[in-house]
Amino acid sequence: MANVKDIRDYFEQVVPSYMKFDFDNVGMLVGFCDAEVRTVVVSLDITDAVIEEAEEICAQLIVSHHPLLFDPLKRVTDNDPKGRKVIRLIQDGISAICLHTNLDTAEGGVNDCLMETLGARVTGLLDPHGAHPDGTPYGVSRLGELAAPVEFQDFLVRTKQRLHSGGLRYVDGGRPVFRIACCGGAGGNDMWKAVDAGCDTYVTADLKYDHFLSAKELGLNLIDGDHFCTENVVIPHLKQLLLSGFPELDVRISRAHHQTVQFI
Amino acid sequence: MANVKDIRDYFEQVVPSYMKFDFDNVGMLVGFCDAEVRTVVVSLDITDAVIEEAEEICAQLIVSHHPLLFDPLKRVTDNDPKGRKVIRLIQDGISAICLHTNLDTAEGGVNDCLMETLGARVTGLLDPHGAHPDGTPYGVSRLGELAAPVEFQDFLVRTKQRLHSGGLRYVDGGRPVFRIACCGGAGGNDMWKAVDAGCDTYVTADLKYDHFLSAKELGLNLIDGDHFCTENVVIPHLKQLLLSGFPELDVRISRAHHQTVQFI
Amino acid sequence: MANVKDIRDYFEQVVPSYMKFDFDNVGMLVGFCDAEVRTVVVSLDITDAVIEEAEEICAQLIVSHHPLLFDPLKRVTDNDPKGRKVIRLIQDGISAICLHTNLDTAEGGVNDCLMETLGARVTGLLDPHGAHPDGTPYGVSRLGELAAPVEFQDFLVRTKQRLHSGGLRYVDGGRPVFRIACCGGAGGNDMWKAVDAGCDTYVTADLKYDHFLSAKELGLNLIDGDHFCTENVVIPHLKQLLLSGFPELDVRISRAHHQTVQFI
Amino acid sequence: MANVKDIRDYFEQVVPSYMKFDFDNVGMLVGFCDAEVRTVVVSLDITDAVIEEAEEICAQLIVSHHPLLFDPLKRVTDNDPKGRKVIRLIQDGISAICLHTNLDTAEGGVNDCLMETLGARVTGLLDPHGAHPDGTPYGVSRLGELAAPVEFQDFLVRTKQRLHSGGLRYVDGGRPVFRIACCGGAGGNDMWKAVDAGCDTYVTADLKYDHFLSAKELGLNLIDGDHFCTENVVIPHLKQLLLSGFPELDVRISRAHHQTVQFI
Amino acid sequence: MANVKDIRDYFEQVVPSYMKFDFDNVGMLVGFCDAEVRTVVVSLDITDAVIEEAEEICAQLIVSHHPLLFDPLKRVTDNDPKGRKVIRLIQDGISAICLHTNLDTAEGGVNDCLMETLGARVTGLLDPHGAHPDGTPYGVSRLGELAAPVEFQDFLVRTKQRLHSGGLRYVDGGRPVFRIACCGGAGGNDMWKAVDAGCDTYVTADLKYDHFLSAKELGLNLIDGDHFCTENVVIPHLKQLLLSGFPELDVRISRAHHQTVQFI
Amino acid sequence: MANVKDIRDYFEQVVPSYMKFDFDNVGMLVGFCDAEVRTVVVSLDITDAVIEEAEEICAQLIVSHHPLLFDPLKRVTDNDPKGRKVIRLIQDGISAICLHTNLDTAEGGVNDCLMETLGARVTGLLDPHGAHPDGTPYGVSRLGELAAPVEFQDFLVRTKQRLHSGGLRYVDGGRPVFRIACCGGAGGNDMWKAVDAGCDTYVTADLKYDHFLSAKELGLNLIDGDHFCTENVVIPHLKQLLLSGFPELDVRISRAHHQTVQFI
Repeated sequence: MANVKDIRDYFEQVVPSYMKFDFDNVGMLVGFCDAEVRTVVVSLDITDAVIEEAEEICAQLIVSHHPLLFDPLKRVTDNDPKGRKVIRLIQDGISAICLHTNLDTAEGGVNDCLMETLGARVTGLLDPHGAHPDGTPYGVSRLGELAAPVEFQDFLVRTKQRLHSGGLRYVDGGRPVFRIACCGGAGGNDMWKAVDAGCDTYVTADLKYDHFLSAKELGLNLIDGDHFCTENVVIPHLKQLLLSGFPELDVRISRAHHQTVQFI
Repeated sequence: MANVKDIRDYFEQVVPSYMKFDFDNVGMLVGFCDAEVRTVVVSLDITDAVIEEAEEICAQLIVSHHPLLFDPLKRVTDNDPKGRKVIRLIQDGISAICLHTNLDTAEGGVNDCLMETLGARVTGLLDPHGAHPDGTPYGVSRLGELAAPVEFQDFLVRTKQRLHSGGLRYVDGGRPVFRIACCGGAGGNDMWKAVDAGCDTYVTADLKYDHFLSAKELGLNLIDGDHFCTENVVIPHLKQLLLSGFPELDVRISRAHHQTVQFI
Repeated sequence: MANVKDIRDYFEQVVPSYMKFDFDNVGMLVGFCDAEVRTVVVSLDITDAVIEEAEEICAQLIVSHHPLLFDPLKRVTDNDPKGRKVIRLIQDGISAICLHTNLDTAEGGVNDCLMETLGARVTGLLDPHGAHPDGTPYGVSRLGELAAPVEFQDFLVRTKQRLHSGGLRYVDGGRPVFRIACCGGAGGNDMWKAVDAGCDTYVTADLKYDHFLSAKELGLNLIDGDHFCTENVVIPHLKQLLLSGFPELDVRISRAHHQTVQFI
Repeated sequence: MANVKDIRDYFEQVVPSYMKFDFDNVGMLVGFCDAEVRTVVVSLDITDAVIEEAEEICAQLIVSHHPLLFDPLKRVTDNDPKGRKVIRLIQDGISAICLHTNLDTAEGGVNDCLMETLGARVTGLLDPHGAHPDGTPYGVSRLGELAAPVEFQDFLVRTKQRLHSGGLRYVDGGRPVFRIACCGGAGGNDMWKAVDAGCDTYVTADLKYDHFLSAKELGLNLIDGDHFCTENVVIPHLKQLLLSGFPELDVRISRAHHQTVQFI
Repeated sequence: MANVKDIRDYFEQVVPSYMKFDFDNVGMLVGFCDAEVRTVVVSLDITDAVIEEAEEICAQLIVSHHPLLFDPLKRVTDNDPKGRKVIRLIQDGISAICLHTNLDTAEGGVNDCLMETLGARVTGLLDPHGAHPDGTPYGVSRLGELAAPVEFQDFLVRTKQRLHSGGLRYVDGGRPVFRIACCGGAGGNDMWKAVDAGCDTYVTADLKYDHFLSAKELGLNLIDGDHFCTENVVIPHLKQLLLSGFPELDVRISRAHHQTVQFI
Repeated sequence: MANVKDIRDYFEQVVPSYMKFDFDNVGMLVGFCDAEVRTVVVSLDITDAVIEEAEEICAQLIVSHHPLLFDPLKRVTDNDPKGRKVIRLIQDGISAICLHTNLDTAEGGVNDCLMETLGARVTGLLDPHGAHPDGTPYGVSRLGELAAPVEFQDFLVRTKQRLHSGGLRYVDGGRPVFRIACCGGAGGNDMWKAVDAGCDTYVTADLKYDHFLSAKELGLNLIDGDHFCTENVVIPHLKQLLLSGFPELDVRISRAHHQTVQFI
């Protein structure tokens, strides 16, 4: 039976940590190398609700996208939310493995899943940030194309539906949608590169006023698809990835975690 | 008759540039000190549409909140959008005066106007960043209180209406609204200070995923009121300020500029 | 009955954290604020042996001088010694409070205890690094005087005995001992200040070759009294401090921890 | 008929901007890409007098050596000399293209012209700072040799005449002139490299006291040929370069700009 | 009889080292504290010729303005000019005391002497860089006024004569001379402050092209009076200062050191 | 007959300065390139006693391991110990050549000598910090193996004897000694690399408390062999190296310099 270390090592093979950004913190962040794993919760984040869910189903491991620990800890006490989560996981014997910007980058990762959700075929990388040992470049944001041009309002309605988001924020660039760039999560600063790459449409999240204002002036269709919704598309893939390596595992997609922001 | 320099000096009196943040660039950013001013356009931004509007009504001056030049210019050519705007203003004889974080900070500025729009009474500063020569502190974000507690959903509906926004993004903290903090524009990082100050509700804009996720865990009502909408409340006040100093001016609030982002 | 937070707050009163050096990490570093405390282990360090000792006597708290966490943690796993200690403490329900350079500095702290052990009367500070709110300076290293000059070899023998050290390293400056400076732990870089202050003898630990070579040239009696031994003198005082605040506690000085280095 | 962009692109071919120093700002710095150009003023600097000259002869373009904008602009107003020049050029429809350290470096540029003026044959580079795509190194300062050794006083008189300078400052190293290094403009810090390269004589400008004092001690003939005069030798070449690319242009060497400093 | 240390301590009283700029290196830089001094050479620099002169007259001390050691020494060998000078001084038993930016700053120092040479009355400081313990500010550059306005050409001729310089470089600002600023040595960067202070004329040295170009545009009379000549005016004063403290000394002004640069 | 420069150049061949660490200062640090050398003192340090010894035997050169000048000199006066040594050497006509981290690194240097003293065969480098022109890596610390495993206490006794040290500090890791790493002088921070390299025993000097504490937890035999004693093993080798190049020299190992620290 697999233990936590086996699963950590498996992920290091299929979603290597060298693909992450320098500032990032990924891998096994809490827990017990030799603990046997039967049940795993897969979730975009490790919230209190997700930990409670893991307790209830007696999971030994949570695999998440966002790292539980990003800023290093100067103390581990129940006096702050971060310490409380670490303590609770340790007391429950639950380990945590986090795949963040390496999963954004990996083939079949966040952005390939997002492009598929948008109904587009991936045609390239928007901005490679490194290269595999064999020289193949890798990067986060993807370029893609639809099978045929679509009216922007139709694309909007379809995208909202497929992302299961309570709302979208957007600027209508006055053009049909055909050549797309996407970046799951906070990708606003790649917007100008999307324009330079000849895209008519850019889908990402956590956009700020300057992005919308510039998109209007540049005639770019710009869609904020929500951070959770543009990344959560990877979760079923992550489950499959786990089962490919460890078919005997009971892998559950978190039911406790869902889109946080609401719209009115 | 007032010239541009007179108006610049008047603003330096009533919205002094020492109240700005260090990184900011404010004051007279383009134009002609001695040009006589009869007609002024007041606008949150100097977009191409606003410049066109100023041309059409033969304005000699645009007063805006966001600075036309933020990153210093290495060239002034018609090869990029920023250079094109500067050239067009110079060719039209139009000057530009920009009041940014000093107007966020000033009494009666962006945040006092926002708190009034939210129906709350200002009770203090959330996080002073400087002090007047007489020792009185000043800062951007405001603390405030409603006359009486209001259900969060009622507050949401009312706020959307008063801000004239096409949509709001929010997290429901599960509490009624009474003690509020607000910061027009991008104020997400003050969120934890709002919690520490005992607020139940924080209204700002340009929020990111982490803000919403933390608000949920902290039980804070968090509202993204849109960057444009939370700041545009200052524009009528800015018009009045100009007219107080120069009653003979023809001051027009821009009709060309409005909320950029749309919601679906 | 006192809980961990009460004891943390008490120490903040009597050994305030503002007396620490900037780089330091002190206070409650692991554990449970509301856990009731009956039994405490006091120790210079939190070694595996000390944790085992605390387990055996069912202590709820370890109070140590050296901080369990100095470099912040990027992960809390049983894959490295630091993580294993944190996990073990959490699993055992044991909290850790650490008083480091604030205890070096405090009145009655490491250096006052060391000077007393050396048989000298404290006459001042060697190099203040801060000031109390009332303006009184504080600092780590102490100046002191013996009742009367003593031959260096006699002082050496006596000091070795009183520090309970397996050995001392020293340079004989060729002078009797009367005016002393001391710094428990690694204080080599204050050596030149001791000379400037007119001292004939400096007692500290973790000295390097340059220190001994310079002492020889400067005619300074220099004694490396061992890091553990020059600091462990504070442990009985720390026990008393705890009992003064919480007489009902069962406070045990660690029997598992002792001088690490041996001499041949 | 050529427009400004055509001329900019031509210069990018013959004096590529990658040959400049990192700190420099070159290329099209002010103006209008699509403006047709019939008349060009070529000048070492863009002074007020040069702009007036360009206005009088209805030039559409000024090509200069020193960049009009070096420190980036935070504002473009008529309240400071730099802003006034930019505004005046824009109002007159005059563009500015500046070739600075790339022209110092380029083959046939400032330093080749200077070496020719000194009557010497270029034999190499004093201190390459980069390499062309084909690996050939490039740099600013040149090494050269006269046809035969010349007495220093004779060389001085001849150089003053050929540079058309009102005066020269110099140190007589006590040696005849044969192996020369030169750097048009401020090249004092390459002086020691000239000595290391076996030169008897170094010609540059903007020298400081330390340079003269060291030259005396090193026995180096050192000549300050004036910043303007050692660089203005490139202007006729720059005119020819323009005419080679655009024979139909009316290219005028500025008559308004000349050596600024005078001697008594 | 005075020794080197007595003279060093005397200078510390009358030209305190706290008046120097931070980057500077002043005081006793080479030699022997307890050596008795009978003969002193006073010189702007410690050149090889000055050391030879000191040897010939059997001086025990050289007092100079420019520091013999500015960049710290990593070795003291006869393989480089700086090391050779240090070795030669030590072998000859000659000490070196250097008063640099503290002498520029001091009352009666370089700049007071220069202003007197220019025939002007000192009226203030151009740009204080520190304050005495009693709060009086001090600084390098001086402001001054002539008894009555003088034509610029007359002032030029007179200044060249009084500075004993082989030549002057200048820009004629087109104004008579009345309100002057001066800075002995390299003071170009204070030029704009001189303009802001309402001066018509600025006298300094080591000026660069930008200074002359800007002076022309600003209408400022700008004179480069040569680094040596604008500072050497202090040497007779320095001799008197020494004799005031030590009347029995034989103080000689160097005859070997003179203006280094020549003009044609 | 050899002069100082010949010897300096010889050392540059056999112990090249490019093998040093970046921060280091090596080579000919004081003296006279062309001075003829008949008698040389070889010593780990240049102490006052060593200089006196060199004077007494009329040596012209001292070759040492530790550099006489490490921090660059801002002054060379008899007012501080460093200046006094430089002056004394110059007055005596004695030069100084220092080989520091290049000698630590060189084949046959400090660490090869130390490994031989420990009775072990060198098997590799612990942590290379550079590479020779031919690509061979070089580094300071060595890996080695004994002929057969030895009990730790036996190894301790033997090592103390062979290093001629008055004492050793150590932690007993509870293992026999077979696979060793060593670093003459202060090498504590390589301790973890020694563990990673599979060593049971690490011999170095200037160890601090953390090193001993960690060694205990890691089960590593750790020996502080004294800085002087672990490096002084190179001195006979240095003498031979000199004699290989210059058989006619009278090379004396310093009798005045010996272990500084004493033990009780």
